[in-house]
Amino acid sequence: MTETAPRPTLEAVAARAGVSRATVSRVVNGGEGVREILVERVRRAVEELGYVPNQAARSLVTKRHDAVAVVIAEPETRVFTDPFFALQLRGISKELTAHDNQLVLLLTEGRADHARVARYLAGGHVDGALVFSLHLDDPLPGLIQGAGVPTVFGGRPDWKDGTPVYVDSDNRGGAREAVRHLVALGRTRIAHITGALDQTSAVDRLDGYRDVMRDVDPRLIVESDFTPAGGERAMRELLERCPDVDAVFAANDLTAVGALGVLRESGRRVPEDVAVIGFDDMLLVAERSDPPLTTVRQDIEDMGRLMARLLLRGPDSLGRDRNDENPAGASAGVILPTTLVRRASA
Amino acid sequence: MTETAPRPTLEAVAARAGVSRATVSRVVNGGEGVREILVERVRRAVEELGYVPNQAARSLVTKRHDAVAVVIAEPETRVFTDPFFALQLRGISKELTAHDNQLVLLLTEGRADHARVARYLAGGHVDGALVFSLHLDDPLPGLIQGAGVPTVFGGRPDWKDGTPVYVDSDNRGGAREAVRHLVALGRTRIAHITGALDQTSAVDRLDGYRDVMRDVDPRLIVESDFTPAGGERAMRELLERCPDVDAVFAANDLTAVGALGVLRESGRRVPEDVAVIGFDDMLLVAERSDPPLTTVRQDIEDMGRLMARLLLRGPDSLGRDRNDENPAGASAGVILPTTLVRRASA
Repeated sequence: MTETAPRPTLEAVAARAGVSRATVSRVVNGGEGVREILVERVRRAVEELGYVPNQAARSLVTKRHDAVAVVIAEPETRVFTDPFFALQLRGISKELTAHDNQLVLLLTEGRADHARVARYLAGGHVDGALVFSLHLDDPLPGLIQGAGVPTVFGGRPDWKDGTPVYVDSDNRGGAREAVRHLVALGRTRIAHITGALDQTSAVDRLDGYRDVMRDVDPRLIVESDFTPAGGERAMRELLERCPDVDAVFAANDLTAVGALGVLRESGRRVPEDVAVIGFDDMLLVAERSDPPLTTVRQDIEDMGRLMARLLLRGPDSLGRDRNDENPAGASAGVILPTTLVRRASA
Repeated sequence: MTETAPRPTLEAVAARAGVSRATVSRVVNGGEGVREILVERVRRAVEELGYVPNQAARSLVTKRHDAVAVVIAEPETRVFTDPFFALQLRGISKELTAHDNQLVLLLTEGRADHARVARYLAGGHVDGALVFSLHLDDPLPGLIQGAGVPTVFGGRPDWKDGTPVYVDSDNRGGAREAVRHLVALGRTRIAHITGALDQTSAVDRLDGYRDVMRDVDPRLIVESDFTPAGGERAMRELLERCPDVDAVFAANDLTAVGALGVLRESGRRVPEDVAVIGFDDMLLVAERSDPPLTTVRQDIEDMGRLMARLLLRGPDSLGRDRNDENPAGASAGVILPTTLVRRASA
């Protein structure tokens, strides 16, 4: 739509620098085997003319785009309201920028757009993809495999065939630690507000709760969706079903904050009457809730950083300590440890 | 990184459907001139095999990527914390999705990454670009022009050569209306907390303030940066310089909210002692502030939508009513009207 001046060509740069086209091309693609004095002359000409290399042509030679797609399997409205995604993107952005790779975030309005995302991935626009917030019945993973680009997933994918490469937190272990802490506090009616059970993170946290609470009263488990409004609904349901509940392990901090509001409304004191534990240790959420939230900390920004590093540099780039923490050993998953952070709520 | 099954080919689809490669290709590219019964057979084969068309090859034929880049000239941390950007992206996302175009958000850590963004734009990965939050001394506009892709800007660009296509709000007129309202309330010491003056929106709002407040005491104008923390700093500075200030026009709602906090701290009542007006009418900000904020409303989501529409379908797509509102007539800018929304603060 803008009227633009004609784009400066490789030829123009060559003429200005007094070198051949091939020399300009070599400098633009890294400068290997070109004398420093010529590199300098070409760089000056590039700057003076405002030359932007034709990446398409460059990609034909190098087979690289220096760009990585990020796909979040949620509508853009969710991406911009749940701080989890901003944190994971922050880690990814820092790591990609450190390697001069462009972060290409492919936003969607919802699941109906995933076929279009897969077409973009298949179109030769990026060197790989980082994909997170998968849902069990979503065709996205299959579509992405069909697109044939190297992919690292955030969160354990649920399929069994192949060995998808992923980074995840120890959701099950973290959940166990939270529930054991509630048991140690002497609580006996310990409830769980689940996350969205079409995501493995929610399933794994529920499994961790069940590892500790064998033969639990099933009414103490209420299904929810990782949102504050969902946490409110679940807590109301729970108080109706089990008015004697004395502890709640919520699948994430946003849900826990919703539950805290409903407990306050109902006249119950936290932690005296009901102890509450969340999951994430989300910045600006867990510390600022009323009362401040005891929670299972996972380093979301670090997860993003590791996903990007795995994609760009492979498993060896993670260092020995990461592998030691991975109980699966030879598997393609990197599992990061969690920590229980104690504040006032439990 | 994932071990993927071999990607289904065009040949496999042709074999499964019992048609020629050329027929499959025509169907994948829109299906014109192919009998309905064959289109149906090809579609079924595509679905059964999970075939994803090679977009790169398809683009060579159609010269289209059905993808539009969005570039926000701010670090990603700012993009994910200022709700202004989420709103503008919402409008863009809805409009692009309605036309089955992929939104490609190019995130950066800062200005040093803009040359890489321009390389991506020049690389033949998108059909056009939507660019906003430009800063006066940023090389990005020049780089984008060099990339040679059709571009629509959000906010009036400051350069005079060429006719950049842009969508903006009537910043100057909106500011005038706000300040006139403060004058009508009988206020005489009316201050202005500016936005970031390296952006035309801030300059235009300052000009609107000056249109009404000719020969104003220069101490009543404090430079700020569109952030809540900046608003706090500016308000402290203002109270020190001019303790008799009786009204503040802040360049946006976030700044106004920062100012409200400092006024409360200092024991001044709003609006009795100091009337305050913001700009934006930002969802979840203006209505929820204490007291609720009188502000100049601009429809940020609509701006995003119009930018996308201008890029995809050209100026004629905006309809007659939009043109009537554009005082510049033949210019390449679309200026949207603003409205003063009265709440408790002024």
